[in-house]
Amino acid sequence: MDIAEWRDRINEIDTELVRLLNDRAAAAVEIGHVKRRNNQQIYDPQREREIIERAIGLSGGPLGDDAIRRLFERIIDESRRLERIEAERNGEAAQAK
Amino acid sequence: MDIAEWRDRINEIDTELVRLLNDRAAAAVEIGHVKRRNNQQIYDPQREREIIERAIGLSGGPLGDDAIRRLFERIIDESRRLERIEAERNGEAAQAK
Repeated sequence: MDIAEWRDRINEIDTELVRLLNDRAAAAVEIGHVKRRNNQQIYDPQREREIIERAIGLSGGPLGDDAIRRLFERIIDESRRLERIEAERNGEAAQAK
Repeated sequence: MDIAEWRDRINEIDTELVRLLNDRAAAAVEIGHVKRRNNQQIYDPQREREIIERAIGLSGGPLGDDAIRRLFERIIDESRRLERIEAERNGEAAQAK
């Protein structure tokens, strides 16, 4: 494959990534809503560690464990940031922990 | 949906994300190989800007433009890091720009 073909392949992957990252963020926001309704703590470091360890366990490479960890830390961070923005928009901030 | 169901959904998405992120990194490494064979410059800031702008253009939310930008900066950075590691492993470092 030449560079143009590999770039087309990357563009296809990126299209899927954008969709999945948005779906994931939307699911995280939904979890935030449920937790606030139940007065549960939003931030759950144990769950975040599980997500990262699970992703590392699933990865067959070529990305190394540290790369997967950094990527999922960013993904989780953006979900958390969005949860916070959505909560403030919905006036849920007072309950947010 | 309750929290357990949303988490199952996130786990499914993460399984796909791990696969796609690895596929993407592998494609970036292939591009690096082709470029080195052709003595082309590896780092291409214009292409990186295009990738990010394209991802922002594709995104229908809920992630905002800045979130998509930060996520793709991380994704591109990990691909670039892997390209460099692979090049060094293959003794291509001397040609790498």
